[in-house]
Amino acid sequence: MKARVTVTLKNGVLDPQGKAIEGALGSLGVAGVESVRQGKLFDVELATEDRAEAEATLKAMCEKLLANTVIESYRYDIAG
Amino acid sequence: MKARVTVTLKNGVLDPQGKAIEGALGSLGVAGVESVRQGKLFDVELATEDRAEAEATLKAMCEKLLANTVIESYRYDIAG
Repeated sequence: MKARVTVTLKNGVLDPQGKAIEGALGSLGVAGVESVRQGKLFDVELATEDRAEAEATLKAMCEKLLANTVIESYRYDIAG
Repeated sequence: MKARVTVTLKNGVLDPQGKAIEGALGSLGVAGVESVRQGKLFDVELATEDRAEAEATLKAMCEKLLANTVIESYRYDIAG
């Protein structure tokens, strides 16, 4: 079973990486960019074909490793 | 205008980060994960409200900075 996990910074959390990208885009001559916030995405392949089991595994993956739940929020979308 | 850019490794390109995550999940006791491939996502706010102009800006952002087009592919989804 395939799934995509997206991890993004919670609102209000400063994103220095995003700020650096904004600055770099300006110096590269790309105008009209008001803000950029960077996140992570993970394309995951799970052994199970059971949806509930897949959701439990994805939740454990996020809570234990993929997301720092103090400053980040996550969501996962199971394909199919 | 808001958009989300996703940048992922092209098929066939080795993902050491993904391999490291697979290993870590195993040692954290999360079973049933066959593969993990990590990518980047960017939530972007553009000044323009013109769709064509937004697409041109997003393409320039990706080609110039956000994606290494030799090993990565990108796509962008404009909200609304």
